[in-house]
Amino acid sequence: MNIYKVGIVGFRGYSGAELARILHRHPAVKVVLLEHRQDAEHRPEPLNHSGPERVFAAPDAIAAAGIECVFLATPPEVSMELAPALVALGIKVVDLSGAFRLRTPENYRHWYKEDHTAPVLLEQAVYGLPEFYRRSVPGAALISNPGCYPTAANLALRPLVDAGLVDRSAGIVCDAKSGVSGAGRKPSLKTAFCEVTENFSAYSILDHRHVPEILMNSGLDDQELSFTAQLLPLDRGILETIYFRAADGASAERILDCYRQRYEHEPFVRLYKAGQVPDLRLVQRTNYCDIGFKYEAATRRCVVVSAIDNLVKGAAGQAIQNMNLLLGFAETEALL
Amino acid sequence: MNIYKVGIVGFRGYSGAELARILHRHPAVKVVLLEHRQDAEHRPEPLNHSGPERVFAAPDAIAAAGIECVFLATPPEVSMELAPALVALGIKVVDLSGAFRLRTPENYRHWYKEDHTAPVLLEQAVYGLPEFYRRSVPGAALISNPGCYPTAANLALRPLVDAGLVDRSAGIVCDAKSGVSGAGRKPSLKTAFCEVTENFSAYSILDHRHVPEILMNSGLDDQELSFTAQLLPLDRGILETIYFRAADGASAERILDCYRQRYEHEPFVRLYKAGQVPDLRLVQRTNYCDIGFKYEAATRRCVVVSAIDNLVKGAAGQAIQNMNLLLGFAETEALL
Amino acid sequence: MNIYKVGIVGFRGYSGAELARILHRHPAVKVVLLEHRQDAEHRPEPLNHSGPERVFAAPDAIAAAGIECVFLATPPEVSMELAPALVALGIKVVDLSGAFRLRTPENYRHWYKEDHTAPVLLEQAVYGLPEFYRRSVPGAALISNPGCYPTAANLALRPLVDAGLVDRSAGIVCDAKSGVSGAGRKPSLKTAFCEVTENFSAYSILDHRHVPEILMNSGLDDQELSFTAQLLPLDRGILETIYFRAADGASAERILDCYRQRYEHEPFVRLYKAGQVPDLRLVQRTNYCDIGFKYEAATRRCVVVSAIDNLVKGAAGQAIQNMNLLLGFAETEALL
Amino acid sequence: MNIYKVGIVGFRGYSGAELARILHRHPAVKVVLLEHRQDAEHRPEPLNHSGPERVFAAPDAIAAAGIECVFLATPPEVSMELAPALVALGIKVVDLSGAFRLRTPENYRHWYKEDHTAPVLLEQAVYGLPEFYRRSVPGAALISNPGCYPTAANLALRPLVDAGLVDRSAGIVCDAKSGVSGAGRKPSLKTAFCEVTENFSAYSILDHRHVPEILMNSGLDDQELSFTAQLLPLDRGILETIYFRAADGASAERILDCYRQRYEHEPFVRLYKAGQVPDLRLVQRTNYCDIGFKYEAATRRCVVVSAIDNLVKGAAGQAIQNMNLLLGFAETEALL
Repeated sequence: MNIYKVGIVGFRGYSGAELARILHRHPAVKVVLLEHRQDAEHRPEPLNHSGPERVFAAPDAIAAAGIECVFLATPPEVSMELAPALVALGIKVVDLSGAFRLRTPENYRHWYKEDHTAPVLLEQAVYGLPEFYRRSVPGAALISNPGCYPTAANLALRPLVDAGLVDRSAGIVCDAKSGVSGAGRKPSLKTAFCEVTENFSAYSILDHRHVPEILMNSGLDDQELSFTAQLLPLDRGILETIYFRAADGASAERILDCYRQRYEHEPFVRLYKAGQVPDLRLVQRTNYCDIGFKYEAATRRCVVVSAIDNLVKGAAGQAIQNMNLLLGFAETEALL
Repeated sequence: MNIYKVGIVGFRGYSGAELARILHRHPAVKVVLLEHRQDAEHRPEPLNHSGPERVFAAPDAIAAAGIECVFLATPPEVSMELAPALVALGIKVVDLSGAFRLRTPENYRHWYKEDHTAPVLLEQAVYGLPEFYRRSVPGAALISNPGCYPTAANLALRPLVDAGLVDRSAGIVCDAKSGVSGAGRKPSLKTAFCEVTENFSAYSILDHRHVPEILMNSGLDDQELSFTAQLLPLDRGILETIYFRAADGASAERILDCYRQRYEHEPFVRLYKAGQVPDLRLVQRTNYCDIGFKYEAATRRCVVVSAIDNLVKGAAGQAIQNMNLLLGFAETEALL
Repeated sequence: MNIYKVGIVGFRGYSGAELARILHRHPAVKVVLLEHRQDAEHRPEPLNHSGPERVFAAPDAIAAAGIECVFLATPPEVSMELAPALVALGIKVVDLSGAFRLRTPENYRHWYKEDHTAPVLLEQAVYGLPEFYRRSVPGAALISNPGCYPTAANLALRPLVDAGLVDRSAGIVCDAKSGVSGAGRKPSLKTAFCEVTENFSAYSILDHRHVPEILMNSGLDDQELSFTAQLLPLDRGILETIYFRAADGASAERILDCYRQRYEHEPFVRLYKAGQVPDLRLVQRTNYCDIGFKYEAATRRCVVVSAIDNLVKGAAGQAIQNMNLLLGFAETEALL
Repeated sequence: MNIYKVGIVGFRGYSGAELARILHRHPAVKVVLLEHRQDAEHRPEPLNHSGPERVFAAPDAIAAAGIECVFLATPPEVSMELAPALVALGIKVVDLSGAFRLRTPENYRHWYKEDHTAPVLLEQAVYGLPEFYRRSVPGAALISNPGCYPTAANLALRPLVDAGLVDRSAGIVCDAKSGVSGAGRKPSLKTAFCEVTENFSAYSILDHRHVPEILMNSGLDDQELSFTAQLLPLDRGILETIYFRAADGASAERILDCYRQRYEHEPFVRLYKAGQVPDLRLVQRTNYCDIGFKYEAATRRCVVVSAIDNLVKGAAGQAIQNMNLLLGFAETEALL
């Protein structure tokens, strides 16, 4: 089998470490860790087991090492710096940051509070949500890996919105909860153990930067969706509880049928019978998005629960799913 | 000072233990633990420090011991058995179970799936939410202590509903999250450590038995309120994220003013400026209900966050607040 | 490749579920879930993804299904019932319970407080700690998979004891800490979330049933080893802190050399340089046993830290390592 | 009643916040928060409830505000800066840092890796472990509040060492575990939620800076005590598991008698019958030190378990116990 070398910038962060962990099982790739800057932190390393090769993360060095695909598990400003140089060298890039998710530099500036420094590449980036944009991935130079909250929200909402099963006039509420790893590894008071354990808190109420990404891909308008992010006292997992009134003519059967038509054969979306909803345990350390719902016919109220692991389907797993499509492997390789 | 003896049935449960812990600081009461049935579990007891007096929980023995007020931190069926006998002996009762919260035996049977065995007392019970029914408490024979979810929901919703600030036609969503102690101390798989830690799950979607209690006291109708309960991987605390569209003419100022008019001088309701919301850490081990909100003028969307400790303002603390009113103490005694 | 069918009795327990999870990645086996008794608990199952085949766990049905190896992730009394019948049918058995770990029925009765009902098989059982008994595994009819605490203790202690590097006259202390999954999935007050979270407690001080298993395999005598088990508020992982005085002539170099000679090429034992010790994060969800130590030359005091995942190297992973040896696969298959 | 004003420097840290929380219940003191430097972090503050008075933490301002006693819940370098100035102004100081615990500047420099900048005051400081040095406290100008690990260790060890019940030649092991709040509130990777949750790790093996403090007060020599600190994935609590061989002639009865003679009437030390040991739940949010043990007569091995809340008896609670003695209140005021 042809073995491809793939590199990870940001391998000490949570998403980067998860990329390395999953790719370790991939039969057709060899991982190279790309040192971007000296990080004081070092985990102890075993004397009698060696880890992956390490290379300095300069684009030339990456090309010289024969690396064909690079994952950027980095902050947006680092992604905007590295991605253009890598793409120019013909290296495929999967970016896990928010740098290339929105469509315009103006939009980026509005939500990320800084200028976009790679606007040309922004136009070319393909949004890597394979369940909806699978066919655009293989030919792309740069894949923008979706945000964690939008992945769970869009997989749950879009089929129903597309099918006209949501009464959009009544508004949709997405009450989202995430584990702490979603905030990254850089120490801060907000993610310190004693502040988080036994606690639960809401943040970015109605103005989270993932909202435009949900709207763009779900087909909803701004004033239709109320989104709140909340911090769970746990390491990994996102669960979103979504409330809406179903359109006239809806039923539990029609809702379930709608999901089945879209996802029956999707390898990474699992459905449950009406009335059953997933919890985080079902999806942690998997690339699955699990979707269940409860429907009350008398009032047409529907509550959908969508769950993913924010570091897998919400980051590293989906990035590898995209890499599999980019490099021509089976889409599920290393992910089941 | 006159010292009153007060008894606790169910002192080994979480609410019962919390009652004992708080009352230990009360200068005017002496706690008696009332043994209702032999519980296999025994915590080690220190040799050189003695705990409260213990008496068998038979009504006659309770009366003979000179106990003037009894807390029932028991399942509803035990409360329905003990409360009538105690009331008949002239002993004040504060019941922490759901036995006396709904208005009719039919309603009770519908939600609790068993017959109500003390329907006469049900009619006389006073619902002990002091912020709304303070004046009815002192003369009551039996106080029905509110449920944990309804306490947080009603304190947040009722002032706004009463003031006409909620556009009820659009529906109200109450996405509620609770710590595990709310499920009681009886071992079950659902509350086993390895099932709960690092997990988060929804239950009783749209049909929780606390819903009728919220409706009765908030003034909302059934089809207006969508309520989902969810289990947080932590010991204690409830946080409810409440979404609604404000009525025409509303503003952040009017919403805050509404809360201030109702709660400015309430000792146990704390308010935050518009845009700030509480987390669980602020209320744990206190009798406070903390309320904050975010309002978006352009869309009239409002998100209210209401937080309590489910074992204090949601159970033992509120029960002691009721006892203070019943026995003529300062309402805040032992609770600040 | 020849595909073997392997069965799991007790697949709803934590070790059993972990067996299924790991074997899912094994290229040469097909998992069959063996229903032993009706368990009320049911996790929701996806509609569009099917799980492994299920067969009733009667020995005849197991044989009829063509299963060649059975894992018993069951209580000792179930293992003693099923193992003899399976062995009689020529089916290889890997037992994860304590039923076949001690050498004599008397010893079993002393520590497990019940009679051994399969004493003949007890004599034939091979203790499956591959790092020490690798060559005995392939020909065995029944492998007794080691206990979790003994695995971590013996891998850390035995090389040093064998090499005479421990001053046994001064006594050895093994202060052991385990996650809650080690106690199994049956609900009990001791493992209820609210009792365990934010708590830490010692149990079975000096008389844990794993002590004889440690003594048998480490070469230590009863009065030389002080062992205490303690419950960590976490799901999975065992860390043992082992204190001893080194023998005359010892040094940090000699201790490290001793470990390297034994484990340099062991696939599942990782060593660290003197002064560095592992934490649980390094070993969770892996089949590694990580060993590090600190040595103080002036006083000849040595502290060894040994860490495993109790459900992997301490249960399911080691059981699969044994199965790999039994069935002739690479020892590391599915485990790296 | 005469009301004393007492100040807290470092009130945003965990020990400082705990001081404020406990003193809030003290009938004879009024808390003043002393702002030492601008801290970016601000918790939301309720609109309708006001907190304590705030004063800038300059010694002159403190004196001008009429504050009679100041708690320094600060790093050692801040304590060494503020304490001399406060003492010079006749203000009583209780220092919670390690600045004044060791006897000599040389010793301090060795363990804290910096010069002692207040050596004169170091000589005058009284070590505030009331159970052993109660009579020295009232007249002191500066109380050095004991470290958390030493408090639990010394209360457990010293009575037995004094009574000759420990065979010191065999060595004593103290395996100590602490919650994360012991590391303070300053964000760091080591105390980040995702690094700590579901993890357990050892640190400062055999060379923790609390060791000299244990030796000084327990009567043990350096080579006799092996001490390891370990980080529990929980907020608050210290549990120490102490192993030793009892001296000839010891028995479970003699050990228990020894403890009872010392602690029978101590308000904050609780004892358990032989064979029973405390867990963290028993002591959290209390000022108790709970001590239990198991003794094996045949081998004279003894395991003592000592548990405290690191923020209460290990910091703020003990500091208030000292303040009560300093200012002439009942020693237990606000602490039971």
